[in-house]
Amino acid sequence: MAPSAPPPAAPAAERTDAPAAERAAERQARTQRVGQKPGTLTVRPDAPPPRLFLMLYDAQGCDEAEYTGRYDELLAAVRAQPERRYWLDVRGYGDLPLIERLMENFNLHPLQMEDVLNDDQRAKVEVFDDNRLFLVSRMAEFTADLEIDDDQLSIFTGPNYVLTFQDDYEDCLDVLRNRLRVANSQLRQRPSAYLAYALTDVVLDHYYPTMAAVGDYIEELEDGIFGARRERRLLGRILRVKKDVVRLRRLVYPERDKIAEILRLPDEAVPEAVKVYYRDCYDHAIQALDLAESYRDNISSLADLFLSDQSNRMNEVMKVLTIISSIFIPLSFIVGLYGMNFQHDDGHGHLLPLNMPELYKPLGYPILLVILVLIVAGQLYYFWRKGWLSSDD
Amino acid sequence: MAPSAPPPAAPAAERTDAPAAERAAERQARTQRVGQKPGTLTVRPDAPPPRLFLMLYDAQGCDEAEYTGRYDELLAAVRAQPERRYWLDVRGYGDLPLIERLMENFNLHPLQMEDVLNDDQRAKVEVFDDNRLFLVSRMAEFTADLEIDDDQLSIFTGPNYVLTFQDDYEDCLDVLRNRLRVANSQLRQRPSAYLAYALTDVVLDHYYPTMAAVGDYIEELEDGIFGARRERRLLGRILRVKKDVVRLRRLVYPERDKIAEILRLPDEAVPEAVKVYYRDCYDHAIQALDLAESYRDNISSLADLFLSDQSNRMNEVMKVLTIISSIFIPLSFIVGLYGMNFQHDDGHGHLLPLNMPELYKPLGYPILLVILVLIVAGQLYYFWRKGWLSSDD
Amino acid sequence: MAPSAPPPAAPAAERTDAPAAERAAERQARTQRVGQKPGTLTVRPDAPPPRLFLMLYDAQGCDEAEYTGRYDELLAAVRAQPERRYWLDVRGYGDLPLIERLMENFNLHPLQMEDVLNDDQRAKVEVFDDNRLFLVSRMAEFTADLEIDDDQLSIFTGPNYVLTFQDDYEDCLDVLRNRLRVANSQLRQRPSAYLAYALTDVVLDHYYPTMAAVGDYIEELEDGIFGARRERRLLGRILRVKKDVVRLRRLVYPERDKIAEILRLPDEAVPEAVKVYYRDCYDHAIQALDLAESYRDNISSLADLFLSDQSNRMNEVMKVLTIISSIFIPLSFIVGLYGMNFQHDDGHGHLLPLNMPELYKPLGYPILLVILVLIVAGQLYYFWRKGWLSSDD
Amino acid sequence: MAPSAPPPAAPAAERTDAPAAERAAERQARTQRVGQKPGTLTVRPDAPPPRLFLMLYDAQGCDEAEYTGRYDELLAAVRAQPERRYWLDVRGYGDLPLIERLMENFNLHPLQMEDVLNDDQRAKVEVFDDNRLFLVSRMAEFTADLEIDDDQLSIFTGPNYVLTFQDDYEDCLDVLRNRLRVANSQLRQRPSAYLAYALTDVVLDHYYPTMAAVGDYIEELEDGIFGARRERRLLGRILRVKKDVVRLRRLVYPERDKIAEILRLPDEAVPEAVKVYYRDCYDHAIQALDLAESYRDNISSLADLFLSDQSNRMNEVMKVLTIISSIFIPLSFIVGLYGMNFQHDDGHGHLLPLNMPELYKPLGYPILLVILVLIVAGQLYYFWRKGWLSSDD
Amino acid sequence: MAPSAPPPAAPAAERTDAPAAERAAERQARTQRVGQKPGTLTVRPDAPPPRLFLMLYDAQGCDEAEYTGRYDELLAAVRAQPERRYWLDVRGYGDLPLIERLMENFNLHPLQMEDVLNDDQRAKVEVFDDNRLFLVSRMAEFTADLEIDDDQLSIFTGPNYVLTFQDDYEDCLDVLRNRLRVANSQLRQRPSAYLAYALTDVVLDHYYPTMAAVGDYIEELEDGIFGARRERRLLGRILRVKKDVVRLRRLVYPERDKIAEILRLPDEAVPEAVKVYYRDCYDHAIQALDLAESYRDNISSLADLFLSDQSNRMNEVMKVLTIISSIFIPLSFIVGLYGMNFQHDDGHGHLLPLNMPELYKPLGYPILLVILVLIVAGQLYYFWRKGWLSSDD
Repeated sequence: MAPSAPPPAAPAAERTDAPAAERAAERQARTQRVGQKPGTLTVRPDAPPPRLFLMLYDAQGCDEAEYTGRYDELLAAVRAQPERRYWLDVRGYGDLPLIERLMENFNLHPLQMEDVLNDDQRAKVEVFDDNRLFLVSRMAEFTADLEIDDDQLSIFTGPNYVLTFQDDYEDCLDVLRNRLRVANSQLRQRPSAYLAYALTDVVLDHYYPTMAAVGDYIEELEDGIFGARRERRLLGRILRVKKDVVRLRRLVYPERDKIAEILRLPDEAVPEAVKVYYRDCYDHAIQALDLAESYRDNISSLADLFLSDQSNRMNEVMKVLTIISSIFIPLSFIVGLYGMNFQHDDGHGHLLPLNMPELYKPLGYPILLVILVLIVAGQLYYFWRKGWLSSDD
Repeated sequence: MAPSAPPPAAPAAERTDAPAAERAAERQARTQRVGQKPGTLTVRPDAPPPRLFLMLYDAQGCDEAEYTGRYDELLAAVRAQPERRYWLDVRGYGDLPLIERLMENFNLHPLQMEDVLNDDQRAKVEVFDDNRLFLVSRMAEFTADLEIDDDQLSIFTGPNYVLTFQDDYEDCLDVLRNRLRVANSQLRQRPSAYLAYALTDVVLDHYYPTMAAVGDYIEELEDGIFGARRERRLLGRILRVKKDVVRLRRLVYPERDKIAEILRLPDEAVPEAVKVYYRDCYDHAIQALDLAESYRDNISSLADLFLSDQSNRMNEVMKVLTIISSIFIPLSFIVGLYGMNFQHDDGHGHLLPLNMPELYKPLGYPILLVILVLIVAGQLYYFWRKGWLSSDD
Repeated sequence: MAPSAPPPAAPAAERTDAPAAERAAERQARTQRVGQKPGTLTVRPDAPPPRLFLMLYDAQGCDEAEYTGRYDELLAAVRAQPERRYWLDVRGYGDLPLIERLMENFNLHPLQMEDVLNDDQRAKVEVFDDNRLFLVSRMAEFTADLEIDDDQLSIFTGPNYVLTFQDDYEDCLDVLRNRLRVANSQLRQRPSAYLAYALTDVVLDHYYPTMAAVGDYIEELEDGIFGARRERRLLGRILRVKKDVVRLRRLVYPERDKIAEILRLPDEAVPEAVKVYYRDCYDHAIQALDLAESYRDNISSLADLFLSDQSNRMNEVMKVLTIISSIFIPLSFIVGLYGMNFQHDDGHGHLLPLNMPELYKPLGYPILLVILVLIVAGQLYYFWRKGWLSSDD
Repeated sequence: MAPSAPPPAAPAAERTDAPAAERAAERQARTQRVGQKPGTLTVRPDAPPPRLFLMLYDAQGCDEAEYTGRYDELLAAVRAQPERRYWLDVRGYGDLPLIERLMENFNLHPLQMEDVLNDDQRAKVEVFDDNRLFLVSRMAEFTADLEIDDDQLSIFTGPNYVLTFQDDYEDCLDVLRNRLRVANSQLRQRPSAYLAYALTDVVLDHYYPTMAAVGDYIEELEDGIFGARRERRLLGRILRVKKDVVRLRRLVYPERDKIAEILRLPDEAVPEAVKVYYRDCYDHAIQALDLAESYRDNISSLADLFLSDQSNRMNEVMKVLTIISSIFIPLSFIVGLYGMNFQHDDGHGHLLPLNMPELYKPLGYPILLVILVLIVAGQLYYFWRKGWLSSDD
Repeated sequence: MAPSAPPPAAPAAERTDAPAAERAAERQARTQRVGQKPGTLTVRPDAPPPRLFLMLYDAQGCDEAEYTGRYDELLAAVRAQPERRYWLDVRGYGDLPLIERLMENFNLHPLQMEDVLNDDQRAKVEVFDDNRLFLVSRMAEFTADLEIDDDQLSIFTGPNYVLTFQDDYEDCLDVLRNRLRVANSQLRQRPSAYLAYALTDVVLDHYYPTMAAVGDYIEELEDGIFGARRERRLLGRILRVKKDVVRLRRLVYPERDKIAEILRLPDEAVPEAVKVYYRDCYDHAIQALDLAESYRDNISSLADLFLSDQSNRMNEVMKVLTIISSIFIPLSFIVGLYGMNFQHDDGHGHLLPLNMPELYKPLGYPILLVILVLIVAGQLYYFWRKGWLSSDD
């Protein structure tokens, strides 16, 4: 099947560039939803039109096509081969009637569908009465603006399908699609609950490169603190990354809780054979939390170092000021002393011998110079003993 | 029915303008209640007279009227149509006999009624023996004085009614009243327990715009820190908003606990069909807590930034002082040196050739100027190498 | 019955004036008790002699008298009317034989009696085998020295009596005594367990005026921070109040736990009809804790503000120093330059035209003045642009 | 029986003087034990030789003797009167064969004996299969070096004996020995489990004088902060005491947990009649923890005060500098101005009337003096308005 | 059997020298594993080739040999004596086919084998269905770069063997190997589960020397703070060690949880006779955590001390500046005053008697000198009273 031409990617790209603006928009959307009937489906005006991707597979093979705008054809394709499993991947929510058809066809609860569209949910799992699952994962990315951009992946599982929703055309799931395309992959041979696990796992594992990027940036900041030309905005940057690390921790915590809850679900909802993999997943979540914790500690230490260094630099400035002032202010006094105009004679020819007789001594000036040098030497010795002359570096 | 003329709104408005004064009044009221018999009903002297609003509804329609001052008519209206459900909304407590009649007619416990009147309760739920509920919610508002103003909404549920109390004429429930006015709304078709849920949900959702307002203000503060003319009171403002965020967290925590307790109640008290909505509510409470936590982190970072920036500005002041002093104090010494009056002759015609011979050299002055320039250049080079000449911005 | 003359109140008053000294005495008493046989009764040497107050009541009436020094008469009075309930209120422990007779008559355990006399117990509840209760409450007061003075109220309940012990003649229970004197009060009609509840409740409610006093003082401190003449000891005072708030929290926590434990006791120990009131009490304890928490936050913010303000004031001092020094030090150099004595002629009639020719120019001085003014103007402009000239207030 | 001469006390005294050195030795001992077979008994080379004390008692009397070096005689004495209870008190571990004989005779587990010798165990309780107990308590002392010196007391209970081990000749148990010597004491009449309780209780109660000493020292530090001649090392001392308080808290926590565990033991291991006393003990542990917590808070406040005071002193230094500099630097400029040598005539008889005509005015100097005084007055007024002239004290 | 020549140790040594680089490599490896099929075995390119060590033992003796590169011979040797127990120690993972053969021969789960190769697992225990255990321990070392270098030890237990994996040729297990070589050691006589315990115990005990090294370093830092020539990088070092201590705590926590979990395992997985040793181990883990906590407290105090000392040094610098400036700036003003050129006569012979008559007084200069000395004395007295003249040391 020939995939239809994809809609232009620009609007989506614009949106993901600015997580702060996105959060502000979410905040506003949140406000407008106050008092709404629960289960009311609303789509943000800037939501891109949905693209539909279908991967229809069994142990033998995998057919793959984009059905954007051709939902009826998609349904027909799926129904034509009822014995095959499939993954229907919906990206973008900008078409409410289509969303409602999907909800009806797949028998989804309006409250859950509302959670899909209001894409600021924490990671969680909910079980339908018929043991189908509704899973929410969050895909986190460390952007160039030092922000954590996180998108929601909503997963519905059924007996022979997995249905995923995301509000963006871009995601981190290609690695999984490739595994599905490979002949004899486990993914193709196992039940669709295993595909749901694999999706959860890929998203969770994706926290590692995100955290690695954060970790690299933290090391960069560390280097920056002791660099010669420290920037004033460094602390701002340190605190921004701290915010990111805290955010990551807040994203991973619910992931861990979600997996713990999956492990407690009855075997009808999640087969024991799949749970063994979720257990592995659980370890990963714990490790990711550990990493986030240690990043947080590192950043706190960085902030402490920054502030101490700031104070250190002030110290050094003060030392220079103090040394120079302490040396030259007394000298200035002395030379000022001999700049006074006390008269040696009173203008009427009477000598006033006590008025600055030094000025009339043949060696007055050389002796004074020697005294000045001795004063400087004494002071330098004092400062050297205090350790103020040696640089702190 | 023609609603009676509402009492003038002014006193109520005055009260809500000053949450601090309100809190002081509460503190005083609290003090006066010490040692009172439990269940003693006391009304604050400044309580506005109660207004009574009735919404009498069933799936077919909704009759709405204000019965302020006409409680008997209200009772008659309700009893005339016993098969319809109704919401009786009492605003203002300034009429103790009426309150006591309500207590008697609706069979409310004095301790609970005391909780209604002493409107500083945490969100909570209590169950009557006959499975009626007593719910307390708190409606929070971010005022122009940067305070969180929170009013209590007390909800009693019965088999076919919901009875609400609030001490103020203004509230955030109009959005719900509108939903009740709409034909075919779920609210009309479902049991009154669903209306109680909807009230709880609206109040909880109302935390979002409140938090959004706080969030916007935090971003304003963030901009303020790096602005050119930083105000000294900025930290005071940061800490005040921190107080608000902490207060919001303290308000939402009991809301979450309340909903968790509702979810654990037996189905006779809260039908399973309504619990599914409370579960959604629970997620919202968690998200609101999450938001409050991240605001708190942001504000702590802001305060750190403020203090570091303060120290930075001091650093800059010190650098200017140090550079200027370090350059000019030694120069002043040198020029002071040549301002000394050591005499080249002793007044009796004897030359004292060692006394400041420089002053008599043809190039004395130009050479000195060159020396001064060299000293300045040397110092500037030293400061430039230290990075003190480049601005930190 | 004519109450016997009360012992002079002075010693008791002296003791309550100085909680710090009291604590030191407690510390010493504690030390001396190390290794003592458990249940050893020791009375502090400064304990005032006990006064005995009896309130003998039933639904019909209440007889009240002081039996200080007449314990046998008291016993006779109680035994004469066995069908009436009574409250025996012992204030002051300075008479060990009397204490031991009370212990024997009321069948109290030595360990509990030891807890009564060592009056530094946390709030707690203990149950006798015969379902009598031993309750400890602490009555807290905010003194003029900014300390929390807390006295212990020990309550023993019996089938038809309540026996209370306190080491002081003053307490906060008069409000309850008045309720007992009122005809038809619930207190008289209900079992003595209700009186025990009422005592617990009054003491707990008494935390509110104490906290209100602390709260008022905190607001006073807040005003003090921005006042013109800030005192250096302000932080000391802030931290002392913080200590008080922490102390209050530590006092209320066990009260809450005590009430929670009472609620878990079997109905034989505490009738369900009384428990409903303890539940109300529990809410109050939670609210008091909430209040203490928010006071603690406020005080932390105050301390931060104080320190930032301290740094701000230093900043301002530095700015004044920097501006004045930066302006006048260079000027001083320049005028020093032209105070040098380089000679225009060498004393032998030879002109040295390069030595300070400016001094001989007709407009030398006016031009220099203009240059000085320009330098000042340039500096002022620089400082103005930096925002250093505008006050931070 | 004549007690054998005690070994010289000097080495023991030396060891307890230096808890830091002791801890270093422990650290090293710990390192050497890595990889050892569990249950390996090793004795530190500096362990003093064991002294054996026996108290053989029943309700009638108490025989007491030291059997140091005469273990066989001790065994004989005990076996001669099997119906009496006894307390065998071993102090010092410097004789491994003796330790091993004890282990064998009293049927002690090697792992527990290892815990006795490696005397850095936390307080704990272990139960043998035959319901005998192994208890570890820690005796804490506040030394003159501001350190917490804590020694381990290991207690083994048996049907009719208590066996205690300590590595030191000095302890805090004499108060208990005296109680055992007193005729008719409860200690003699009750089972040996009660003696074990009494030991535990005495050690726990001994935390109170230790904490009182710490508390007194904290108050001393408080006074030191506002003293005129504050020492620079004060913060070091504050932080050292903080360390002690934290250490005390860490010592008491396991004591509390130990007692809580004892209370949960079956009655065969600890009779109910003894548990009632442990419950009292539990309250003491909680109070000791409370005390430690409040000390910790006090110390944190002290450290804050110290730092604020430090900053305050700097502030004052800066103010003095600023006031003096601000007053005199401008004055110096002005007098420098009139120290310039601009010539009133050009040396060739031409008047240069614009060059410093002020110098030739009859009132030039007096007017200048007035101007200088006015400048000083203006500045003083400015500083007075800023509040810089009033001392902060 | 002659052990084959070991591969050159250099590469391994290089790797362990730089834990930071190692962590970066791990981070990258982690990133590359995202989306991989779970259970995928990947070996890092720099992994050293595996060396195989076999210890074949029973109560009678212990045969020991290296089988590097001769895995088949190893299998034969083991199978030849099926009644003996053995420990197979694999060091280095650089040979994937061998790893896969081991996995197959010992029936290991791919997910667990993946945990072995991705050697950044937390300490944990997993139980196979057949009650075999998979244990992960981490061996920590305090390196010369002030980093904690931790290597993973993976332990598989079987009915009569223990199989260990580590990625490095060096370890801390030699002490255990020596115990196994000793005749009649418990290790040889007990089941292989006891050997697994012994391995766990040795690794856990190894934390003590590591912590002792950290503790020694902390004391060194403490000395450094008060040393005369404090280095600016000291805080950096303090914070690095803090990071290490936090890391140690994070390493020991899972060890403790692992042992707690082992204690909860059924007796079929871990015999009760071995559990008694694990209980001892648990105490050690708690103690190690305690130590880590107290180190953390010490380091926080150190950082506080450092910052306070920094501020103290600034204080001292400021005092020197202030004293010298305050003394000499006023003096300079006075001598400047008498350096002014106000003319005593107007050049035309008219006397201007008010212009600086002091200059013409016979004792002008001596009196001025006295005045200057008095000013200095007054200032010194003022500074002495302020306590600024005495050093703070």
